[in-house]
Amino acid sequence: MISSTMQRLKEAIVLLFLAICSKAVNSNPYRRPPIIDTEAAGGGAAYCLSWRLAVEANNIRAWRTVPTQCLRYIECYMTWGQYERDLNFIVDNINDYIDEIILKSDDSDAWILDVDDTCISNLLYYKRKRFGCDPFDPMGFKTWASKAECSAVPAVLKLFNKLRAKGFKIFLVTGRDEITLGQATLYNLHNQGFIGYERLILRSEAYRGKSAIIYKSEIRKQLAEEGYKIWGNVGDQWSDIQGEYVGERTFKLPNPMYFVP
Amino acid sequence: MISSTMQRLKEAIVLLFLAICSKAVNSNPYRRPPIIDTEAAGGGAAYCLSWRLAVEANNIRAWRTVPTQCLRYIECYMTWGQYERDLNFIVDNINDYIDEIILKSDDSDAWILDVDDTCISNLLYYKRKRFGCDPFDPMGFKTWASKAECSAVPAVLKLFNKLRAKGFKIFLVTGRDEITLGQATLYNLHNQGFIGYERLILRSEAYRGKSAIIYKSEIRKQLAEEGYKIWGNVGDQWSDIQGEYVGERTFKLPNPMYFVP
Repeated sequence: MISSTMQRLKEAIVLLFLAICSKAVNSNPYRRPPIIDTEAAGGGAAYCLSWRLAVEANNIRAWRTVPTQCLRYIECYMTWGQYERDLNFIVDNINDYIDEIILKSDDSDAWILDVDDTCISNLLYYKRKRFGCDPFDPMGFKTWASKAECSAVPAVLKLFNKLRAKGFKIFLVTGRDEITLGQATLYNLHNQGFIGYERLILRSEAYRGKSAIIYKSEIRKQLAEEGYKIWGNVGDQWSDIQGEYVGERTFKLPNPMYFVP
Repeated sequence: MISSTMQRLKEAIVLLFLAICSKAVNSNPYRRPPIIDTEAAGGGAAYCLSWRLAVEANNIRAWRTVPTQCLRYIECYMTWGQYERDLNFIVDNINDYIDEIILKSDDSDAWILDVDDTCISNLLYYKRKRFGCDPFDPMGFKTWASKAECSAVPAVLKLFNKLRAKGFKIFLVTGRDEITLGQATLYNLHNQGFIGYERLILRSEAYRGKSAIIYKSEIRKQLAEEGYKIWGNVGDQWSDIQGEYVGERTFKLPNPMYFVP
């Protein structure tokens, strides 16, 4: 009972903090963005909650950076527990779906997972990029990814192991460049426990410059032509789960830090 | 400056209240649902926020009722301002998109709006249905809709008028039954200021029993075959904006109270 009350108190404090730290950012005139009227939009945390909802529901597209007034809000969201709760909630729902599936068990049962911020996390990197308030830095990201120091997303690692245990062939499909990041990605996935998947598919030269929707649709089409049935497809970007051959069910994991077209 | 501080204070209180009133529901043993462990899921408001996000991102589907422990949370969300803020935020984004469109101006420029909880609101009805915690009641809803007392969703009425002014042909496409609710719906839309649309399309006998995705895809296909270009498609249900001929851009308005397959 006490731990339950403490839990609720902690939660109330987090929500209050979400409001207060938005205020802190907004009340600094040097940080106030010139275009978006946060007062008209409802101010601070409420505005950022609307923004995050619109991102997750695919209403805002091709956005380049997190609105500066939402820096503290996104920092709180990503690091104070709600991001993890949202992830766990969705993975619980994926588990329910998996439990209902009757596999064909002819080696054709497939599942697709994205890599960045699905299997392994770039949160440490994005902390230094003001949680997405700074624009995308291709060279900086490449340097980071080359280190192979992304940590596993715990909920997705559990999902991965459940999928393996149930008998799915798991395909990891990533927009990372095959030539420059292939080795580091392979190693990073391995050192974080993603072992026993069917295939890691990186972006080959043929797909350079193509949008993720086009590239990933092509990959899924090839898998379908090889005879695989794609039962599920999980990613943190809408471009992971839109386009063609998306799979029987798609699941969008939260990511309020960046947008991949 | 004072009004700005008051606004932030009000916002903090709302967020705190969201946490507290979840606690109130959860601490009542008669209301605690037997299956979902709210503690394990992160408890009260945080859990309900995860649930709402999963609904809006189309991760949870075919859900029948709002989780009972989220009754107060959804009540707060719908009536304390955040729902309205979310709506306004999305409509602002729709307006940005509209401003970029160069119309063909050959009477083919079309836009599709859903009716229930897009153009006109059923919030008053759902208040009596515990904001969706009670299961769908077809007869109760029919009685309500027959009264033609739904009020306009202000942000969408503004959008409607902007679309008209810019020269779009507006098609209102609803799953409401044509025979039993046609007259009331026509009257309700009119008494709320939705005047000057191109066509109101209700569910005719041919589509009875079909899912909204199938029915609405068929309608959009017919419009495309008539030569219309569907620039935008707005609804509060994923089934409004999925399927075929969805349009150049789709927009999902929030609705955490019910799910239409």
